[in-house]
Amino acid sequence: MRIGVLHGSNLNRLGRRNPAKYGTHTLVDVAASIDDTGARLGFEARHVQSNHEGVLVDWVHTEMDDLDAVVVNPAGFTSVGYPLLDAIVDTALPFAVVHISPWFAMDGRNRADIFAPLATTYVTGAGWHGYRLACEALFHHVQDAAAVRPR
Amino acid sequence: MRIGVLHGSNLNRLGRRNPAKYGTHTLVDVAASIDDTGARLGFEARHVQSNHEGVLVDWVHTEMDDLDAVVVNPAGFTSVGYPLLDAIVDTALPFAVVHISPWFAMDGRNRADIFAPLATTYVTGAGWHGYRLACEALFHHVQDAAAVRPR
Amino acid sequence: MRIGVLHGSNLNRLGRRNPAKYGTHTLVDVAASIDDTGARLGFEARHVQSNHEGVLVDWVHTEMDDLDAVVVNPAGFTSVGYPLLDAIVDTALPFAVVHISPWFAMDGRNRADIFAPLATTYVTGAGWHGYRLACEALFHHVQDAAAVRPR
Amino acid sequence: MRIGVLHGSNLNRLGRRNPAKYGTHTLVDVAASIDDTGARLGFEARHVQSNHEGVLVDWVHTEMDDLDAVVVNPAGFTSVGYPLLDAIVDTALPFAVVHISPWFAMDGRNRADIFAPLATTYVTGAGWHGYRLACEALFHHVQDAAAVRPR
Amino acid sequence: MRIGVLHGSNLNRLGRRNPAKYGTHTLVDVAASIDDTGARLGFEARHVQSNHEGVLVDWVHTEMDDLDAVVVNPAGFTSVGYPLLDAIVDTALPFAVVHISPWFAMDGRNRADIFAPLATTYVTGAGWHGYRLACEALFHHVQDAAAVRPR
Amino acid sequence: MRIGVLHGSNLNRLGRRNPAKYGTHTLVDVAASIDDTGARLGFEARHVQSNHEGVLVDWVHTEMDDLDAVVVNPAGFTSVGYPLLDAIVDTALPFAVVHISPWFAMDGRNRADIFAPLATTYVTGAGWHGYRLACEALFHHVQDAAAVRPR
Amino acid sequence: MRIGVLHGSNLNRLGRRNPAKYGTHTLVDVAASIDDTGARLGFEARHVQSNHEGVLVDWVHTEMDDLDAVVVNPAGFTSVGYPLLDAIVDTALPFAVVHISPWFAMDGRNRADIFAPLATTYVTGAGWHGYRLACEALFHHVQDAAAVRPR
Amino acid sequence: MRIGVLHGSNLNRLGRRNPAKYGTHTLVDVAASIDDTGARLGFEARHVQSNHEGVLVDWVHTEMDDLDAVVVNPAGFTSVGYPLLDAIVDTALPFAVVHISPWFAMDGRNRADIFAPLATTYVTGAGWHGYRLACEALFHHVQDAAAVRPR
Amino acid sequence: MRIGVLHGSNLNRLGRRNPAKYGTHTLVDVAASIDDTGARLGFEARHVQSNHEGVLVDWVHTEMDDLDAVVVNPAGFTSVGYPLLDAIVDTALPFAVVHISPWFAMDGRNRADIFAPLATTYVTGAGWHGYRLACEALFHHVQDAAAVRPR
Amino acid sequence: MRIGVLHGSNLNRLGRRNPAKYGTHTLVDVAASIDDTGARLGFEARHVQSNHEGVLVDWVHTEMDDLDAVVVNPAGFTSVGYPLLDAIVDTALPFAVVHISPWFAMDGRNRADIFAPLATTYVTGAGWHGYRLACEALFHHVQDAAAVRPR
Amino acid sequence: MRIGVLHGSNLNRLGRRNPAKYGTHTLVDVAASIDDTGARLGFEARHVQSNHEGVLVDWVHTEMDDLDAVVVNPAGFTSVGYPLLDAIVDTALPFAVVHISPWFAMDGRNRADIFAPLATTYVTGAGWHGYRLACEALFHHVQDAAAVRPR
Amino acid sequence: MRIGVLHGSNLNRLGRRNPAKYGTHTLVDVAASIDDTGARLGFEARHVQSNHEGVLVDWVHTEMDDLDAVVVNPAGFTSVGYPLLDAIVDTALPFAVVHISPWFAMDGRNRADIFAPLATTYVTGAGWHGYRLACEALFHHVQDAAAVRPR
Repeated sequence: MRIGVLHGSNLNRLGRRNPAKYGTHTLVDVAASIDDTGARLGFEARHVQSNHEGVLVDWVHTEMDDLDAVVVNPAGFTSVGYPLLDAIVDTALPFAVVHISPWFAMDGRNRADIFAPLATTYVTGAGWHGYRLACEALFHHVQDAAAVRPR
Repeated sequence: MRIGVLHGSNLNRLGRRNPAKYGTHTLVDVAASIDDTGARLGFEARHVQSNHEGVLVDWVHTEMDDLDAVVVNPAGFTSVGYPLLDAIVDTALPFAVVHISPWFAMDGRNRADIFAPLATTYVTGAGWHGYRLACEALFHHVQDAAAVRPR
Repeated sequence: MRIGVLHGSNLNRLGRRNPAKYGTHTLVDVAASIDDTGARLGFEARHVQSNHEGVLVDWVHTEMDDLDAVVVNPAGFTSVGYPLLDAIVDTALPFAVVHISPWFAMDGRNRADIFAPLATTYVTGAGWHGYRLACEALFHHVQDAAAVRPR
Repeated sequence: MRIGVLHGSNLNRLGRRNPAKYGTHTLVDVAASIDDTGARLGFEARHVQSNHEGVLVDWVHTEMDDLDAVVVNPAGFTSVGYPLLDAIVDTALPFAVVHISPWFAMDGRNRADIFAPLATTYVTGAGWHGYRLACEALFHHVQDAAAVRPR
Repeated sequence: MRIGVLHGSNLNRLGRRNPAKYGTHTLVDVAASIDDTGARLGFEARHVQSNHEGVLVDWVHTEMDDLDAVVVNPAGFTSVGYPLLDAIVDTALPFAVVHISPWFAMDGRNRADIFAPLATTYVTGAGWHGYRLACEALFHHVQDAAAVRPR
Repeated sequence: MRIGVLHGSNLNRLGRRNPAKYGTHTLVDVAASIDDTGARLGFEARHVQSNHEGVLVDWVHTEMDDLDAVVVNPAGFTSVGYPLLDAIVDTALPFAVVHISPWFAMDGRNRADIFAPLATTYVTGAGWHGYRLACEALFHHVQDAAAVRPR
Repeated sequence: MRIGVLHGSNLNRLGRRNPAKYGTHTLVDVAASIDDTGARLGFEARHVQSNHEGVLVDWVHTEMDDLDAVVVNPAGFTSVGYPLLDAIVDTALPFAVVHISPWFAMDGRNRADIFAPLATTYVTGAGWHGYRLACEALFHHVQDAAAVRPR
Repeated sequence: MRIGVLHGSNLNRLGRRNPAKYGTHTLVDVAASIDDTGARLGFEARHVQSNHEGVLVDWVHTEMDDLDAVVVNPAGFTSVGYPLLDAIVDTALPFAVVHISPWFAMDGRNRADIFAPLATTYVTGAGWHGYRLACEALFHHVQDAAAVRPR
Repeated sequence: MRIGVLHGSNLNRLGRRNPAKYGTHTLVDVAASIDDTGARLGFEARHVQSNHEGVLVDWVHTEMDDLDAVVVNPAGFTSVGYPLLDAIVDTALPFAVVHISPWFAMDGRNRADIFAPLATTYVTGAGWHGYRLACEALFHHVQDAAAVRPR
Repeated sequence: MRIGVLHGSNLNRLGRRNPAKYGTHTLVDVAASIDDTGARLGFEARHVQSNHEGVLVDWVHTEMDDLDAVVVNPAGFTSVGYPLLDAIVDTALPFAVVHISPWFAMDGRNRADIFAPLATTYVTGAGWHGYRLACEALFHHVQDAAAVRPR
Repeated sequence: MRIGVLHGSNLNRLGRRNPAKYGTHTLVDVAASIDDTGARLGFEARHVQSNHEGVLVDWVHTEMDDLDAVVVNPAGFTSVGYPLLDAIVDTALPFAVVHISPWFAMDGRNRADIFAPLATTYVTGAGWHGYRLACEALFHHVQDAAAVRPR
Repeated sequence: MRIGVLHGSNLNRLGRRNPAKYGTHTLVDVAASIDDTGARLGFEARHVQSNHEGVLVDWVHTEMDDLDAVVVNPAGFTSVGYPLLDAIVDTALPFAVVHISPWFAMDGRNRADIFAPLATTYVTGAGWHGYRLACEALFHHVQDAAAVRPR
């Protein structure tokens, strides 16, 4: 099983950006923790980060045929990233949204998350662990769906 | 470490209630899966379910001194359970909200989750796995907080 | 055929409570008039009243397997009784909402009826007759549905 | 006692129009079922249907002195028929609103019923039986009012 | 100078309809009082009343070339009469809106007057005198406009 | 009969202020035209203008016992003059609101007129004639009320 | 193939009504241009215009069995014509909405088009060509649907 | 004179719950201070606290015939306690709402107090003194009302 | 201890203004009752009333250094008195808002109280006693704050 | 005459993306059909597609001097593409918006089209034909404008 | 060139009022800094401050013929000062709004600035420098306008 | 001191784009005027313009360690540029927003400026001078902050 993990704007600075809010772990730490979980459960993750929404859209187009699920932290695109959202939804893959900090207590007070109503799974406020937990939830989701799929 | 897990209205029927939406696992299955995770990580869970909000409030008052964190699936109390929310918030413990189905794609379209802006962690759409993942997130949250707490 | 009739908060005082608005008939009168109609058409009614929403939820869980339809006057729970609403909707039985006084001209001006969009039948402003008329409507509804159900 | 029954736009096609939503009974069936009830209880009904709101307004002006109550299914005029609503309200007669399908679950989600806050009785989602039940409710309403009217 | 005076739905019953709210003068009285004012100032009035909005629209099409101004009491069409409003606005004539009772204290609390933002003059709460005062205001308006029109 | 005529902020500049919108007549012209009407019908007018809302409030307190009606052009106080509105309403006298230009087509598009729902009579868009027409409407209103007052 | 073309209120004056906004072509010109397109592609058009909404509703009832698609310019009925909308929707035929001028830049800024969410095709701001383009779109729509319909 | 004092959810923990917000006085202290005031002015207080709304409703039903006024701190029921509100309003007794902390600066920013528009007296932000002051206000209210009541 | 008591617009007429709503006590009575309470508890009150908001602002500037707390009945300034609110808030003194009648059941239904979210204490619907009770609450508030203030 | 045709995000996958909603024709098919129409009427089209809004903005800057009109399917940029909208509006060229599926029945229910109020022509729900029809409408628009332009 | 500088309510206390928010410079410092800039660029400033809105309105009437531009810090009048706004707008002079602190981050979150949509220039959050910068912007604005004015 | 100056979408065309609204000065002129001011006061400016939001985000990441303040004209990103806003806010530098034309009178009427509530300084409607004035304000802001910073 293969899971695409998309990181939106400014997340290249994770670990250095506002540590009081986002912690000190970097995307490398996130990837390592996902790989650990993947090794234990049986899935592989592919990562991409960009401050250019179009780059993420293109990446989805290119990778989608090789993926079984998508995890996305839309970051700055959370309220406005319709192109990215459309690209993900068009894959028809199950996808999870991750926010590192408690979205509803912070940014989410003032603006909507347009990805939320279409996501399979939603994890916020679990810090950098959130990515790993979302991957785990999607892994089980895909497995369960496969189990009930008629042959 | 000890985590209180609260199940709101109608969840006594989990597994039999609308299986297409909520799956076929019961609260016993949920508790077993949490116990497994607890055994692996090192925490213990205490469960309570009630269709009477007052029972949950009383339970929080009684148990709060023995708890390090709270997981709650407010179910029918999600939009209106201020007494329960107040009781949990007054404990000053970190707490996580769990919805089994994708809240934002279903009930959440039409009504607010009053627990969301005050929760540490938020997990929806991960099915019955959501409880376990929320416990895991809170476990790390409490551990990390303890690590930085001055002695 | 069996119909459950639920009376929400303060309806134990029907007949004594604000007679100018709700009339002088009591729940006993309501039950008698339903029984008359039931005798004529061929259904039996089971009643419950409580000021504790949890009691009504538990009652629905206990009785639902013996019921063919539900009539509910949610009274004080009309805008906030998600636990009760969830319990009724989870039965998958047709249900009717009854308000004794004209809901839209009175309380309904300022607050929503959360039961309305999910109810099969809706009767307000018909006084204490409303219960009986709602039972009659549900009786025909169940009968018609049975007639078209394939064998 | 005499009850005027008004059928709004497109109801001339009742029974042929969208049977999945409105059933297969025609206005003739409705009239017959009301006549049966009227014969049992002691009232007479007068019917009118039009796709022209002005025709209904004129009809109310002409008939109002001979009526004791009004039942109206405003159909397409439900959200916009102020002329018809004004005409009915100006009669000072008690009136009931009938919608054949569950209004709140269907059209009523997106638009207001301007007749609702001024109606004595409101019956929706009782199918073609709704007309008969509304007549019955108004019959008792008029009788009760007459009983308490000082001589 | 010639002024068209349009009376909307139910105003054929003016004087008999809800006298506590609308007074006891009929449309004949209104016309007489306008004729008196017209004789004094120098204008002639043409009246039309209908409960059919289409009739009023057709009337405007037929009469518009002979008119210098329009007075309209839209009555039941006040919030919904876009066809009538369009017809009047398309004449490019100055027009006045009249409501007999204080619109803002009564119906206007709950619904908009779509004619108001496009009207030259607006008179409400002046009882049946309102028609005459509106004609007088429009008379001066047309005279003043003629005075400044270049030859 | 005596009518108080209140002119709000900036109306001391009427005739010089934005003539394209408000015309070239001054408050002196307005007063003269009201006096003419008063002489014909039988009432006397007292005027006050101020850019200080408190001055108008004090004036109402001082004069109210000698007045039978009030005409007010609240101008800049239209949306915010609760002290002035309270003072006028406390007199329990009938009062009319006058706006020189068509309020609903101009300022009224963006802000509410807090005087409107409490006014007896409302005249806008009749230019400087509006004052005179409002006085005339109130004159008849007071006369009619006196006629029906029991002795 | 046969397409019904409905013209709402005031469109009998097309070409003479506000030419700066609606152009100088009349309904006769519109019909001719549609006939040309129909001759080229292979469909026939039937026209109706009325200022009486009821007339349009009756027309739909009478003609619907002979039609394959409907084009409607609801004009003054755009925001309030539920009877007409219901009539068209009940035909279950594909239908297109046409507005001659750019609806969203003009009237549509302030009021909703209730036909829009239910229409197959929507053309505005294409002037009198809009009718012809809408017919062409519906022609292809009906043809494509016929092609995939199983025999 | 007898005043019922109702304490809503979580107030059993007053004095221990969030002292920075609610102070360190307990319900026992509140009762003592009310008794002092009652002894001075001449009234007796009866207290009840519950985290179960139904218990408070039942209590009102049982005690209402012995009470002259009601003081309620609805706490967690403030925005959702329609059953409790209905029970109190049905007593037709004057009642006061008390919030210990400044409601409008804290919780009241985000949610409505449904008791406010129906309360006789409203006291917030006076700390635990608020109960006593509310009792005093109601005491005078009842006394004044008694003084003007005709014999 | 010294408390400034500010009375907004039209309160100079208290006792004569709308007695059914505001009672028959005058500002002199209010002052006397406050003095009684002040003598008992140990504070002195200074009063000011004006229909000119600027006068109240100037008064606050002049007196603020001699005051320990402020009580204000903003009356007509309640929704619009930002200058007065700013002046009071800038003093950094605790302040209480008083409305004589039940604000939320009357004026407060339609307009916001801009003072409410910033006030320490809020008392409405306690009639003329409200001033005295507010002073008492502030007195204790200031005393308690002094007690915990470090020396 | 030359028309620029802009395709927003994800439209590079047209024909493969969600065929049930968008059909099976690709951008190549769209271009061919526009070329056919262009050949018949006399205009040339230039195409650009990008998932990067900035690329489309740059393209408009580069090409605008050679264009007479613009057709745009903003796709994912529909609600948020202010940079693209600004770029198009700054060209001062007439432009048409195209949505392949019925926008108002689908995405448009939940979010605004910021291009709509500024577009000359608007075509939705005409499938891939919509592009061609929009080009045709703009062609006539430009021709008509040229005809009335003074020399 | 001459610029009028208006300071609204409570600004007489600038420098002493809430220094953490507004700094320690007084109006005298502001005037001196404007004079410096005026000496450098070539304009003269006239100042007025009042807590009485009427005083500012009168001042505008008196001074307007001698002014070329207006700078206003409406302070407490920002959301409600229609009389002041009308007075300034009626001068037809370019005007700038100044807020010392960052308006949008502070007061502006909760209430509108009614001056903003009509101002030429808007400067907030530049501290006491804001006045000087606004004068400089208006100076250039007037100069540029003079340059293009035809002789 | 070093100030980063960011120019959003379409500003590469400043001076050629809509000169009636934005004037004829280009970005080169803007840079020169800032350099003049910088030379006088003692700061250096670094400029970047892009129609690609991602480019601006990357630029902020690269340059932020060398900057003391940021000036941004977000242009087309004003309502939707959360990635850019996040990038700037994460620098923790003071920043100013500049709009060349009067934002609140133009675009700002219909859409929010998401940068406004977080900006230190805000300058609109000062034309191309706005950039220079914003730099000057930030220069003083940084200087003042440095002065009070403890060593």
